[in-house]
This record gives sequence, structure tokens and C-alpha cells, in this order.
Amino acid sequence: MKKRVVIVGGGFAGLHAARTLGNRNDVDVTLIDRKNYHLFQPLLYQVAMAALGEGDIATPLRNMLAEYDNVTVYKGIVLNVDLESKKVNTDFGDLDYDYLVLACGAQHHYFGNNDWEEFAPGLKNLAQATEIRRRVMEAYEAAERTNDPIERKKQLTFVIVGGGPTGVELAGSIGEMSRYTLSKFYRHIDPKLTRIFIVEAADRILGTFSHEMSSKATRSLEQLGVQVWTSSPVSNVDVNGVQIGRERIEAATVLWAAGVQASTIGKTMGIETDRSGRIKVESDLSIPGHPEVFVGGDQACYTTDDGRTLPGMAPVAMQEGNAIGKMILDDLKGRPRKPFKYRDKGQMATIGRNRAIVEFGNLKFDGAVAWFTWLLVHIYYLSTFRHRVFVLMQWAWSYFTFGFGARLIVNKDWRFYGSDRKSCTYDRPD
Amino acid sequence: MKKRVVIVGGGFAGLHAARTLGNRNDVDVTLIDRKNYHLFQPLLYQVAMAALGEGDIATPLRNMLAEYDNVTVYKGIVLNVDLESKKVNTDFGDLDYDYLVLACGAQHHYFGNNDWEEFAPGLKNLAQATEIRRRVMEAYEAAERTNDPIERKKQLTFVIVGGGPTGVELAGSIGEMSRYTLSKFYRHIDPKLTRIFIVEAADRILGTFSHEMSSKATRSLEQLGVQVWTSSPVSNVDVNGVQIGRERIEAATVLWAAGVQASTIGKTMGIETDRSGRIKVESDLSIPGHPEVFVGGDQACYTTDDGRTLPGMAPVAMQEGNAIGKMILDDLKGRPRKPFKYRDKGQMATIGRNRAIVEFGNLKFDGAVAWFTWLLVHIYYLSTFRHRVFVLMQWAWSYFTFGFGARLIVNKDWRFYGSDRKSCTYDRPD
Repeated sequence: MKKRVVIVGGGFAGLHAARTLGNRNDVDVTLIDRKNYHLFQPLLYQVAMAALGEGDIATPLRNMLAEYDNVTVYKGIVLNVDLESKKVNTDFGDLDYDYLVLACGAQHHYFGNNDWEEFAPGLKNLAQATEIRRRVMEAYEAAERTNDPIERKKQLTFVIVGGGPTGVELAGSIGEMSRYTLSKFYRHIDPKLTRIFIVEAADRILGTFSHEMSSKATRSLEQLGVQVWTSSPVSNVDVNGVQIGRERIEAATVLWAAGVQASTIGKTMGIETDRSGRIKVESDLSIPGHPEVFVGGDQACYTTDDGRTLPGMAPVAMQEGNAIGKMILDDLKGRPRKPFKYRDKGQMATIGRNRAIVEFGNLKFDGAVAWFTWLLVHIYYLSTFRHRVFVLMQWAWSYFTFGFGARLIVNKDWRFYGSDRKSCTYDRPD
Repeated sequence: MKKRVVIVGGGFAGLHAARTLGNRNDVDVTLIDRKNYHLFQPLLYQVAMAALGEGDIATPLRNMLAEYDNVTVYKGIVLNVDLESKKVNTDFGDLDYDYLVLACGAQHHYFGNNDWEEFAPGLKNLAQATEIRRRVMEAYEAAERTNDPIERKKQLTFVIVGGGPTGVELAGSIGEMSRYTLSKFYRHIDPKLTRIFIVEAADRILGTFSHEMSSKATRSLEQLGVQVWTSSPVSNVDVNGVQIGRERIEAATVLWAAGVQASTIGKTMGIETDRSGRIKVESDLSIPGHPEVFVGGDQACYTTDDGRTLPGMAPVAMQEGNAIGKMILDDLKGRPRKPFKYRDKGQMATIGRNRAIVEFGNLKFDGAVAWFTWLLVHIYYLSTFRHRVFVLMQWAWSYFTFGFGARLIVNKDWRFYGSDRKSCTYDRPD
């Protein structure tokens, strides 16, 4: 009798778990995701900054799992999990499981101020990447159109809240775009006058990196025209900008790269989560009291032997997904589960077209070599061969032509008759 | 004193007019479009069918006109035109003109039944292409999830209203996708059971082509599994399907490729339009009584010497745009305007991956040679070199791998907190 494995989430953790169990003849795998595609999140900021298109970093889950006859994919939403009956309740019916893998990922959060979301989109999925791209390009169009210098300054001001890798990548991209790429496209504005702020509550950006690399990254950002504000927690966000204690920046575009919290389904299950909603797991990645339920990826909170909790990063999710698959296979073969051991692959962040920082244990380096390493690693880990080819070609083209990316503003509303087209100038709230 | 030319619309006609006037030192050109990009509309159906991405067929207008120092681009909406004062009133201010070029294009229309739009999106812009792609892919997901055979049949039924080239291209694409590409991606459905209907009110599809080619195209469609219904005017469209007189088809997805009407701005100007709202122009493409106002592209109704009105096609728009540019230059040099002469480049339509029909005067052919001709012509006319390279590569890849296009369903709502995510399973109206 085949064991039924239900995997919730088709990101790195869920996908790797499914692949590990693929084509084994003693398991039937069902993977559910509310999206129909797997997203290569490390490159999401490139879609937001119009360097890549949606199809370059996402592939339908069906494509990626088609070769495994024992894997079924559904696009759907998991409403809750009944741990006692071992049932997953979805919007298309109930699924029984012998093993459950939760890999629902994380979403950004606003520290309780959900009304800020409208003014400051986050960057966790493709729709947000497109929304950010739209807002950034609309700001330049608005600046070009206006005769009011105060309005122009506001449109040419961008605030990125959060100094982690995502914030740094966004800020660096806008810096490079404004200082290099956009200059000849406008007649009434000088894009090089764009003000870009990266606002970080802690005393330095890139807190997970060493002080040395964090400092080098700050200098690289400044060289691209980015103003780095540390020890600057945001106290309010509204349609006109951000408030940082007694300081204020008027900006038409604010981007949120500050907080993440795990998918809320953990809280509904009555199990222990950490402050960000991540589910605490044992050394075999299962939840206490339920060895048949695993959690991996950003949704999981795994503490290593030396007391460190693993961060929400792609390599962690991939390894956890593989490990969960092996745990299940060990069970089926009657072997004991081996504790999960994370093989630290280091971390990196990129700033603009040829700057990056890389840390791998005690090895730290920046500059062009770091950037090239960053490029190779990301190409290597891209999910399909087709993506590697097309992304490499787009980067090569952009690199040599200084970036003719797809800077398209696509209207959110496709209707002609069902909306008031005349008032539809901007796709932003009033 | 430089003459001020205002061009409304950045499609084929507007773009070609701008390029003709580019870098002339006696004109200042201002081009306004509500979009920031130029769209290669003939390939829009490929984005709708997930064969190409948005960035493959669209380029920001600024990129395309950056080399002309005398051309300024604004993203904005023209609210009305004051012919007496020679002013264009936009949502960012008024613009005076010495010459005005209207090239606002066309939109689909529902013969007075605008409430049908919600159930049957058209295909005239990128947002609609993405919406169509979403609906088609969602239908397959819904079919895979359901246990109800009636619901499954409805989800696996697609109705395309309109048997012109756009409708034929959409229907042929879904036919090919269902019979060839999707087969191995689903476990509970056989995509080859997809029903596809192309519903045409006239007595044959492709009425602008010869009877012989129209008949060959019908056979090609049928070989891809498409059911062709002629003499079948749609009497109603609702959320569950279409009514054709006493006949009814239950379909989850209806696509509208039936009627176009010109941009409504013509009607507000108090000038003569035809039944579709197209503005009637003289032999020099200007409007009667206002030789300084030109109309080109789908918005114009030009009648040739032998009484034929030119259709709303890309080659017509390109030639009209060029001609309008030359009329203005003739004026500036004190030369008489020469009547516009359309050089008929024939017409073509494609059905699936290797079938097409081409008509050029008396030369008519179909099959693989026609398809190859279609491919070369479209690659040639693509707006930028970058597009030619990337589109050709994508087509080559799809051709040899049977179509791993970007079949992504991207949620329209990017918000996590501002919407009811649980009910957000489908992006279609209830």
C-alpha cells in the first residue's frame, strides 16, 4: 500500500521534497500551491527592476514535476490542517495523508501596520514584482510630465525600507538605473538627480554579513547614489512618504523589504511558532508530537546544535526539502532518521551590475570577482536549463548595452468598459 | 520657428510618423500614449497563449525614440481636442499644436452589450493578453481539481467569438496546446478532450481572405481539434457560456475576437466617422476642413480610388504613419502633398505551429511554406533587433521542445492584507 504524501507549497523546499520522492513506487505525492508556478525568488528583484521578465524566473510546477508519474500537482489553497485525522482541508476538497510536508513560505509583514501595505508593496511574488516595476516607471513618467519642482522631486525620490539583501538589491538597481541607464530617455528631467534612500532600523545594513562586508556594501551603494540611513526605524508610511521618528522623507514610491513572517497557517494549527510565525521543528524537521508532519523552508524554524536558527534563505530551503524527502524514504525502508545537518553555503548580495559581496565561512570578498561568483551560482541554481540559457543571454545583452530591460508599465485593469479609463492614469492609490 | 507636431498614440502609425519626423530641425514632436510602450500587436495572441512573454513584443516608447532629440514622449491621456484653438487637452496639461496626428487605434466592442466584456475579454493590449492567459490556464487547473464531470467538461471548453485572423490564431493555439503540449502535465484529465469552438456570424471564417484559403484554414483548424461554427451570431454571453440563437455552449472560458471600433475620441470631436467610429480622411490622410489634422492607423477610415476602405492592419498603419510624416515635411518645404497610395503587402494568418495561409494578390499558398513566410515577415517587422533575436530563440526552443512557454498564472492582486486571500482561488467573476 503506497504511502500518501501531501506537500503544501511549491517553492524550494516543497519542490525539492517532491523531487526526492519522485518516481519511487511506494509513495504517491500530491503537491498543492496557490500559484501554478515555482518562483526563483532570489532573482525576483530583477523582475521588479525590469531587468528580467516573469517567465525568466518562474516555471509552471507541472513542467517541473511532469517526469514523476507518482506526483500530482493541484493549484489550490489549503484552508487548514487536521492533525488528528491526518487530513488537509483545501478549497477543492479534503486530502488524507500519511505524511504531510508544510512548505508554505513567508510573506512580508508590517509590524502590525497592515494599512502600510498599500503605500509600500513588498517583494515576495510575481504580482508584487510587477507592481513595483509599475510604480517605479510611473514615477519617472510623472516626473517628466510635471512642471511643479516639488512634485518632480517627490516623484524622483524612492525609499526602500529594510537593509537586508533584498533592500540592498532594490536600492542598488534603482541607483544604477538612474545613474546609467535612463539618462537619455527623458527630456525634462535628469534621472541622475533621483534620490534613493535605504532605511534600516538596525545600526548597519546587511546584519547577517560581517561588519567588513556590510561596510563595503554601504560604500558601493553610495557610489551608485544611494543614501544609506541606519538606526532609522520607520514610524509611519503614508501616500506621500515615510516618517522616521522626527525625520520625514517625501517620496512617491516606497518599497518594503523589511519584515517577513511565516505563512499564517502555522498559527491555526495550534503548534508552537516563533515570533515570526515560523514553526519550531525537531532535528528531523518534524513537529513535536507529530513525526509524520514536516516543515521546511521559510516556514520552519530549525535550531542547530550550536543554538543558531537557520535563516530564511534559498539554500536552507533546498537542503531542508531534500532532507525531508529522505526522512520519509528512511521511514519506508525501516531505517532510522538521521538528524538534519545544514551545509553552510555562505551568503551573497549584489549591488548593481558589477558589485557584490560574498561570505563563505572565513572567506570574504567583494568587487567584480564576487559579482561573477554571484552570477555563476544563480545561473547554476536556476530551475531549468531553458532558464539558464535565456537569463544568461538577457544579462549579457543588458550588460553590454547598459540595460534595455522590459521597462513596461502594464495597466492592472484590462477592461475597457468596466472601469473609468479616464481616471486610470496612475495605478496607485490616491 | 519650429512647427509643433503632436502625435496621439504610439502604435504603428504614431511611431512611424514620429520616426519620419525624427531629427528634422524644423519640427518639435510630442508623442503621447496612455501606455509607456509600443506593442507589436500581431504577436499579442502569443502572449495570450503563453508562447511569448510581455517583454518580447513590447518596448518602452522612450527606448524607441531616444535617438531623436526633437521627439518628446509623455505617458498620459488625451481628454479632448480643440480643433478651433489647435489645442490638445491632456490629463497633465494643454498642448498647442501646428499639426496633430491622431493614431489612437481601436478597441474591441460588443455590439452594444458592454456587460459581456467581463465574461469575454478581448485581445488588444498586454493586460488583456495576460488575463486571457490566466483564464485559459486556470480552466485546466480547475478541470484537474474537480470530480464533477459536468464541471470538468465546462472547464475544458473554450469558445472564441469571431473568425478573423485573431480568432483563428487563438483557436489554433489552444488546439495545438491541448492536443500536443499539455498532455503529460495532468493526471486526472486528458487535455486532448478539450472542446474548442470558433463561432463566426458570417458564412465563413477569414472573410477578408479568398474562399479557397478560408476553406483550407477551416480544415487546418479542424485537424487541431477546433470545431468551426459559421452563420452563428452570438446572441448572449454570460458567466457560463454563450447563446447562439437556440443553440447553447457551456464554457468556462469565452474569448472575444469579434468586433473592433475605433478609439472613441473621434466621436467627441464632432467630425464624421464611419459605423465603427473610424474617422473618414481625405486622400492626404487629413480630416475634411482641417488639413493640419491627420488620422492614421486603425482609427482612420481611408477609401482608395476603387472604393475600398483599408482594413485595420499593421502594414496599413505603418504606411499611413510614414505618409503622414511625409505630408508634414512636404508642407514645411513648400511642396504639394501627394495622395496616399497603399502598397498592398497581402495578408496572412497562422494556425498552430506549422500551418498558415498567405495571400499576396493572386498568389495564394498554405502549409509549411506559408508558415515559414509568416515567421520571417514577423521577425523582420519586429520593432527592435533585440526582439528579433529573443523571439526567434523562443520560437526555436518551443518548436523543438513542443512548447515550454511561460504558462504562468499570476494573481492580479498583489496584496496580502488588503484582500481576502482565501477567496482568491480564481481570478474570474462569480
